[in-house]
Amino acid sequence: MSTIDTVLARIDQDLDASLDRLFDLLRIKSISTDPAYKDDCREAAEWLARELTAIGIEASVRHTAGHPMVVGHRKTGKPGPHVLFYGHYDVQPVDPLDLWTRDPFDPALVTREDGSKIIVARGSADDKGQLMTFVEAARAYMAETGDLPVDVSILFEGEEETGSPSLDPFLQAHKDELKADLALVCDTGMWDATTPAISIMLRGMVGDEIVVRAANRDLHSGHYGGSAQNPNHIVANIIAGLHDETGRITLPGFYDGVVEMPDDITAMWDKLGFSLDTFLGEIGLSKPRGETGRKPLEHIWTRPTAEVNGMWGGYQGAGSKTVIPAQAHAKFTFRLVGDQDPDKIRESFRAYVRSKIPEDCSVEFLAKDGSPALRLDPDMPALAKGKKALHDEWGVEAALIGMGGSIPIVGDFKRELGMDTLLIGFGLEDDQIHSPNEKYNLTSFHKGIRSWARVLDELAKN
Amino acid sequence: MSTIDTVLARIDQDLDASLDRLFDLLRIKSISTDPAYKDDCREAAEWLARELTAIGIEASVRHTAGHPMVVGHRKTGKPGPHVLFYGHYDVQPVDPLDLWTRDPFDPALVTREDGSKIIVARGSADDKGQLMTFVEAARAYMAETGDLPVDVSILFEGEEETGSPSLDPFLQAHKDELKADLALVCDTGMWDATTPAISIMLRGMVGDEIVVRAANRDLHSGHYGGSAQNPNHIVANIIAGLHDETGRITLPGFYDGVVEMPDDITAMWDKLGFSLDTFLGEIGLSKPRGETGRKPLEHIWTRPTAEVNGMWGGYQGAGSKTVIPAQAHAKFTFRLVGDQDPDKIRESFRAYVRSKIPEDCSVEFLAKDGSPALRLDPDMPALAKGKKALHDEWGVEAALIGMGGSIPIVGDFKRELGMDTLLIGFGLEDDQIHSPNEKYNLTSFHKGIRSWARVLDELAKN
Repeated sequence: MSTIDTVLARIDQDLDASLDRLFDLLRIKSISTDPAYKDDCREAAEWLARELTAIGIEASVRHTAGHPMVVGHRKTGKPGPHVLFYGHYDVQPVDPLDLWTRDPFDPALVTREDGSKIIVARGSADDKGQLMTFVEAARAYMAETGDLPVDVSILFEGEEETGSPSLDPFLQAHKDELKADLALVCDTGMWDATTPAISIMLRGMVGDEIVVRAANRDLHSGHYGGSAQNPNHIVANIIAGLHDETGRITLPGFYDGVVEMPDDITAMWDKLGFSLDTFLGEIGLSKPRGETGRKPLEHIWTRPTAEVNGMWGGYQGAGSKTVIPAQAHAKFTFRLVGDQDPDKIRESFRAYVRSKIPEDCSVEFLAKDGSPALRLDPDMPALAKGKKALHDEWGVEAALIGMGGSIPIVGDFKRELGMDTLLIGFGLEDDQIHSPNEKYNLTSFHKGIRSWARVLDELAKN
Repeated sequence: MSTIDTVLARIDQDLDASLDRLFDLLRIKSISTDPAYKDDCREAAEWLARELTAIGIEASVRHTAGHPMVVGHRKTGKPGPHVLFYGHYDVQPVDPLDLWTRDPFDPALVTREDGSKIIVARGSADDKGQLMTFVEAARAYMAETGDLPVDVSILFEGEEETGSPSLDPFLQAHKDELKADLALVCDTGMWDATTPAISIMLRGMVGDEIVVRAANRDLHSGHYGGSAQNPNHIVANIIAGLHDETGRITLPGFYDGVVEMPDDITAMWDKLGFSLDTFLGEIGLSKPRGETGRKPLEHIWTRPTAEVNGMWGGYQGAGSKTVIPAQAHAKFTFRLVGDQDPDKIRESFRAYVRSKIPEDCSVEFLAKDGSPALRLDPDMPALAKGKKALHDEWGVEAALIGMGGSIPIVGDFKRELGMDTLLIGFGLEDDQIHSPNEKYNLTSFHKGIRSWARVLDELAKN
């Protein structure tokens, strides 16, 4: 048996233990956005550092202004490329809790009606389950061969779900330590349950939040209705005016830098057999929103978007309360593509919002970070190695896909450390990340571990 | 001395004792919305029934599905009109308690810097202080003359602050007992501290609540953004489309039944010296919203309005969450005027909302009651008598005013018992009803008692 075959056999034998370790990590309530879970985030970081150390990867927890980083290194002295694997141990909040079928932090392996098994827990897919595919692949390699096939560094952060505020300063401060030949990131998805994928295109993001204030206190809507400004109406007007009737975003200059896809890429995508009916049907919808005249994959991969992630103002309890609230709120995210400039888009958005505020009212902006969109070079050598490894494991060609979401780290790696990133992940559309009842297929976990072993093996080849 | 003069003299002599009795009532924590105060509500009802009986008005506490009613009668055998006086003994909750300068249920007479005196306590103005103006006027009449000048029935309820759920069934079940020639209600305000007022116009109301549902779960706004419907956008579009750029409400047929005020009424209002700067300045605003080309008093009295009292959807916590929510909500109230039909307006609103719902999304309506607007006949004889009585007491002409809010009981009296209502009250804008540090001016209480004595005297005249 070749080395890789023995490693793969060990992975198969060790699967139950791998699952136990993943469950330990899933039990830690590392919700990064809520200060109440600060200690849990630290606990997750410490858990990971201990695991890496146990495997034989020299690891430590590193302090930041926010949640800590975990950094690990295994120097092999081998000639292959040095890779930096990135993942995040923090998870999304779990509300609304009543929509979960079980405690989100009490992971379980559930058998579905079709006999397939899924791991149900917050973070199972995003990103604890995914990052553990790499850790378990490394463990099997170390256990079987006493070393890794290439030099490996590891970086786990705990602020991915809150915009990674500490990441950029950390990369800058530890350039020499973290710079490698290639970054590996496992926070993306497969094309479908049987077709692996490598993401070559990521949307960027600009986030912003507004607080619109009118009267100095909540008012009786009978006494003041019709005369006093209602911040709910102002915020609704701002939201409603963001799109025109064709679904285009109305902000001046918003489409500057948006590029059309090359024909060979769109031709490849046309062959993927994307089913809009399945994509939307799975979430209970049937008609695409989005710009008129654009294909479904353009809507989610190559066209920029504006979404209101939250809005609120006034009374939300049972029954009625005849109030005009003193303030109303909304949270926005814009997904960017091509060469759209996050700073210019934020500026244009804020100018638009200000133009909608009556002169005796005010608006406050709660700033968020922004990141530009990214595209990988389709001729990058590591891409071919990744494709081969995935083909060997899954038996079908890996799809080179776009991604609607944003992974700002990929831009940071390029900008700060001059590294390209190979984005390989095993998430599926129905994983319900950021939603109640998040899950990760056992197949994704198991074959994900095997895939990373194969990728490391391929990368070591000359 | 005429009879009324002796009655007024007795009121003046008796003021300290009247205050003591009011304080006894104010000490009872009759918060109707909180089940913890159920016994206190009953105690307030029993206290009132005892007081009425002591005066010589046959009174009893009547059971309902909620808090009890107090009903009293004094048959005089005199030829004048039979009047039904209405008030409510329940009060608003007192939170936030830390904003009160004293215990809200430990009433005190406080002397202000300008030497004027105020009664500080929860319910002092809304409505215990006001209803006691009538009770004390009746007491003085009974004590001085051994009878009242006209037949008087009394109805006190304990659920006004919770939407009066028991009132309509109670009126229907006791039509014969409660029907009178005229209703008197003391739950409104003066024009200012020296100018009495009679409210001749009340806006009606239609309330509705919508739940807009799109995907069957919360979605990641990166993965689905640009393709899946966002209920926040749908609700915002619905809200934004309710008004046009001139502030008019866009619902088809909405203005059917809206009438322009007669010139003599608007001329009277022009003379009231309403200050928009003061009205809006007191709440921190300066520019009226509302229909272009309409006067400020039209905005709040005679024009219909649409207000969003609450809206919410998606993530409201700290930081960001890149979610497209499965549903979004809004609570609406429309204030009605003239002959606008609440049912037709609800129908038009719902048709409008449905027209804004994409075909793969849905809307649920959570129905609310509606009540039409009310206008008193300016030639109603009782109005002239009320005006004369108030002029005699206050030395200035009573303002005939509109009210932006709604007092559903007035519609119930008209609909169920065929009675018109004379709305006379002595509250002031700065009474802070429903807020911490509620107060009632001693002048309002004292001259309020005297005013009701004069109103009864006038009503008795042929």
